[in-house]
Amino acid sequence: MSPKITTELLKQLRQVMKNPRYVQEPVQAYIVPSGDAHQSEYIAPCDCRRAFISGFDGSAGTAIVTEQHAAMWTDGRYFLQAAHQMDSNWTLMKMGLKDTPTQEDWLVSVLPEGSKVGVDPFIIPADQWKRMSKALRSAGHDLVPVKENLIDTIWTDCPQRPCKPLIVLDLSYTGVSWREKIVALRSKMAERKVMWFVVTALDEVAWLFNLRGSDVEYNPVFFAYAVIGMNTIRLFVDGDRMMDPAVREHLQLDSTLEPEFKIQVMPYGSILSELQAVGAGLSPKEKVWLSDKASYALTEAIPKAYRYLTPYTPICIAKAVKNAAETEGMRRAHIKDAVALCELFNWLEKEVPKGTVTEIVAADKAEEFRSQQKDFVELSFATISSTGPNGAIIHYKPVPETNRTLSVNEIYLLDSGAQYKDGTTDVTRTMHFGTPSAYEKECFTYVLKGHIAVSAAIFPNGTKGHLLDSFARSALWDCGLDYLHGTGHGVGSFLNVHEGPCGISYKTFADEPLEAGMIVSDEPGYYEDGSFGIRIENVVLVIPAETKYNFKNRGSLTFEPLTLVPIQTKMIDVNLLTEKECDWVNEYHQKCREVVGAELERQGRHEALRWLLRETEPLARVQ
Amino acid sequence: MSPKITTELLKQLRQVMKNPRYVQEPVQAYIVPSGDAHQSEYIAPCDCRRAFISGFDGSAGTAIVTEQHAAMWTDGRYFLQAAHQMDSNWTLMKMGLKDTPTQEDWLVSVLPEGSKVGVDPFIIPADQWKRMSKALRSAGHDLVPVKENLIDTIWTDCPQRPCKPLIVLDLSYTGVSWREKIVALRSKMAERKVMWFVVTALDEVAWLFNLRGSDVEYNPVFFAYAVIGMNTIRLFVDGDRMMDPAVREHLQLDSTLEPEFKIQVMPYGSILSELQAVGAGLSPKEKVWLSDKASYALTEAIPKAYRYLTPYTPICIAKAVKNAAETEGMRRAHIKDAVALCELFNWLEKEVPKGTVTEIVAADKAEEFRSQQKDFVELSFATISSTGPNGAIIHYKPVPETNRTLSVNEIYLLDSGAQYKDGTTDVTRTMHFGTPSAYEKECFTYVLKGHIAVSAAIFPNGTKGHLLDSFARSALWDCGLDYLHGTGHGVGSFLNVHEGPCGISYKTFADEPLEAGMIVSDEPGYYEDGSFGIRIENVVLVIPAETKYNFKNRGSLTFEPLTLVPIQTKMIDVNLLTEKECDWVNEYHQKCREVVGAELERQGRHEALRWLLRETEPLARVQ
Repeated sequence: MSPKITTELLKQLRQVMKNPRYVQEPVQAYIVPSGDAHQSEYIAPCDCRRAFISGFDGSAGTAIVTEQHAAMWTDGRYFLQAAHQMDSNWTLMKMGLKDTPTQEDWLVSVLPEGSKVGVDPFIIPADQWKRMSKALRSAGHDLVPVKENLIDTIWTDCPQRPCKPLIVLDLSYTGVSWREKIVALRSKMAERKVMWFVVTALDEVAWLFNLRGSDVEYNPVFFAYAVIGMNTIRLFVDGDRMMDPAVREHLQLDSTLEPEFKIQVMPYGSILSELQAVGAGLSPKEKVWLSDKASYALTEAIPKAYRYLTPYTPICIAKAVKNAAETEGMRRAHIKDAVALCELFNWLEKEVPKGTVTEIVAADKAEEFRSQQKDFVELSFATISSTGPNGAIIHYKPVPETNRTLSVNEIYLLDSGAQYKDGTTDVTRTMHFGTPSAYEKECFTYVLKGHIAVSAAIFPNGTKGHLLDSFARSALWDCGLDYLHGTGHGVGSFLNVHEGPCGISYKTFADEPLEAGMIVSDEPGYYEDGSFGIRIENVVLVIPAETKYNFKNRGSLTFEPLTLVPIQTKMIDVNLLTEKECDWVNEYHQKCREVVGAELERQGRHEALRWLLRETEPLARVQ
Repeated sequence: MSPKITTELLKQLRQVMKNPRYVQEPVQAYIVPSGDAHQSEYIAPCDCRRAFISGFDGSAGTAIVTEQHAAMWTDGRYFLQAAHQMDSNWTLMKMGLKDTPTQEDWLVSVLPEGSKVGVDPFIIPADQWKRMSKALRSAGHDLVPVKENLIDTIWTDCPQRPCKPLIVLDLSYTGVSWREKIVALRSKMAERKVMWFVVTALDEVAWLFNLRGSDVEYNPVFFAYAVIGMNTIRLFVDGDRMMDPAVREHLQLDSTLEPEFKIQVMPYGSILSELQAVGAGLSPKEKVWLSDKASYALTEAIPKAYRYLTPYTPICIAKAVKNAAETEGMRRAHIKDAVALCELFNWLEKEVPKGTVTEIVAADKAEEFRSQQKDFVELSFATISSTGPNGAIIHYKPVPETNRTLSVNEIYLLDSGAQYKDGTTDVTRTMHFGTPSAYEKECFTYVLKGHIAVSAAIFPNGTKGHLLDSFARSALWDCGLDYLHGTGHGVGSFLNVHEGPCGISYKTFADEPLEAGMIVSDEPGYYEDGSFGIRIENVVLVIPAETKYNFKNRGSLTFEPLTLVPIQTKMIDVNLLTEKECDWVNEYHQKCREVVGAELERQGRHEALRWLLRETEPLARVQ
């Protein structure tokens, strides 16, 4: 993979940073955040401005360009990838390492006195604006909104914003109608005494209206905003897609409805002016609820005294707790996904020794098997199919330049998932098709111990996920090892594969407590740069736990794995497992046999079934 | 313990809340925080305003009095105690429970429109002021500073502010001279480009100048402030104590010194006007560094643009990392402390069956044994000597009304510590002088497992203490049990028994990473209201750990117990321990035998030595 040459682009950007056509006053620095106007993690090609200017296309990163410097902040998942993709114009800022300056500190250290720092107010979340603005101001600089996106001015072949047809999800998938969701939202609004709620996150709009789209690859969302009043519903969405009779029927656009459920459809681009109108018409005490991650531009549309900002919206929290229909859908999706992976691993076991299977071939084959399953829609993220040293690039995606052939001498790591109409999957398995070394087995077993420690953890109701993160690391820490990413993220129900407000990570503190019905991933790993990567990931459902006692009647929770794909026993050093850990593996594999085995049988996939049975033979500890 | 009758006092307070002699405008609510003007946790009697108005005298709590209500916020350690000490005028707000409103939310819910909420600006930390002021303002109320403390106006027999002689600590105790500390501080100031540093915390003043005092019981500090410039040192301290020749010699007050080390001594009460003068004379870019927990009054003395606020001051961070002299001192102090406790427990073992030992007698006896040790100064906190149900009151202190007699039928919990000139101790042991029930042993063993999980934890350099908190709870959680307090706090070196910036608690996130040389407590517990309390606490030193591998060359850390007092093996259900845990106990007891045994021998305390040898017999696991 050769880096993108950015010398000319940076020159152009530095010119527009001084061009009075675009900026009122020259800006000495320009920030290019990762997200789009909805603060999405996965973005449409037209929003990949940071990748365009730098070459680095990982899912997280912020670029800052000054007259002299170009710097990129990203986290441990992407250190290697960013270093490979960026040319020498760029300095990589490794977030999470002790000596790495924050963006604010770095700006203060490089900027001349009294500088202006520009940013697109639609792209920067209000909370980030506030923090950065304050830090810059206290050092004598100014953060200024630049209305025209400066990257767009130099991006001559920028793709169009997508506007694809919508999918209507019926009650059998969602469990709750959009009208019921609006009622519940309004009751949360009444509790907090707010009159308006602005839906800015794409997955929140999709969830609220029980609609899905495909404007952003891997995430079944569509470009839209919504503004919910106590008696009004405004949906900002472009294109013919609202002409689709199924959508009109679903939203009852042509029916005579109680006025408070009548949806006014408005152009996507009119959100700012509409919100400004709402802002201008507020009476005292009429608050407007926004996420504190909503864009600075939309937040500013509401006068400060009328804003009610929270880190997580009531939709975000409601969406995280899956109802029975959603949970059942997720279970079905994970069984189908396991069928596809049993087929894949059975196939790889036969094909890899022939030396013809590359990372891309394997990824494509995984997609092929998944696409044979019912209600398959698309993948839920770019498949990470990586062998040997590529496995150490945490969010690696094989491309022709890096494409490596799987062999019986290297560890293979596959992190993949799909969107089915009934649920979203995300699973990582690390396999060896030959004979793993003792060291590889040792590392794999520590990662497995961490995975089990989280999966089998019992914890009181009200516990935040970040309190479980160290459980995943303890076995690695004991030997001086660790991994530079969080342990888990929330997973949507036929929605984004990463969602808030819960997760399992040392990095957050403001996560919401785990609740029965929430779904998160459990994915510790270990990565050795230049050699191999190991990760074991299941998607797990938070469920009530039975305990011997019940302190303060709080009740306890634990996890139930939804992912049911064998964990390669060949990679396990059984002597490093405790009896309890060994039992966990055996019980997990027994469940894979029963549940996935039945489905393989039903689908007539006998060879894959035989593979499953072989791979789920019980472990025996040497006493 | 009968509650304090506060009807009359609250009536008086509500009168002065409207009295134009004290308030410019009537205040509809008055906040009485816990702390003093230095945001100390332990305070002098003249500063116990919250206890005076409410009767609740725990170390943490905030009272708010409105025209209609009186409410007290405190944490899980004090729920029972506060409920006992307060009369029915007061509502207890249990912090940490899901349904407990924050002070701000509660105020908003009870105040009439457009209310004024008063608070003494010297007592409220600036960060709390900011948070509360913002929340109140956004609900249409105002937080207002009330210069005269309203409690003081009704507290007719308020004691005088103490002003006791100072103790000079020489280099053999401190390892570093005050001049070197000033040099190091100024270099931190230069790094951050600040010209002034205001020392507001009492332990920071004491540490900086290598002086100790006794103005506050248990904490060897004295009422003082300091303002350090790049070329000036101002120490604000009252009384004859600066006339002491030893102090004058130590601070070189009468020597001809380079001007930048010349200390100007000023009256304690002049800090505000002096700081206002500093604030008024600042040139652009001349910043003043304050803790964000400094009082609102002092923070406001510096114009906003010139303030540099951090959660932890450079003194707080430097003070936390003990040097070799301090570490050695702490080791010595803990050996002496263990000698005293071996004497005590040997004595209790003989005396308890006679039925004549009350909680107060036991606490006094512990103090007596400690006071026999070299360099003993005073206790480091009020001894928690509690038996049976009193043990469940987490920060219980025996008083005649509650004083219970120790017996062979109840669990006894002793949490105690002392100030020695060479170090500060804090140790909890839970003992049974008869035959514990299977359930008591089970609970004790879970607590012990948690204690060991933290003490034996290995974790990477840079890890924050809060990431270790769940290790202490895991064994309890597995059975549905938990405890409602943090797991550990920083411990000073002949200084406050609670100090920042590190600790082990799920409640903090802004703690500084643990570093070799830091000292914290490890004290999980389990409490059953009305029955018993269990806690096992050691003070532990952060030390480098040897590990098999060394990921990213980060290095690893672990803990070395400084506390060397036997953990009662009679209370342990050995079958619930893993082999590693069992080995940990045996190795710990072996070290107690060797180190404390030698000291008991040296001091000729043969009976206590025999007790120690008996109590440290190795555990044997039934295979």
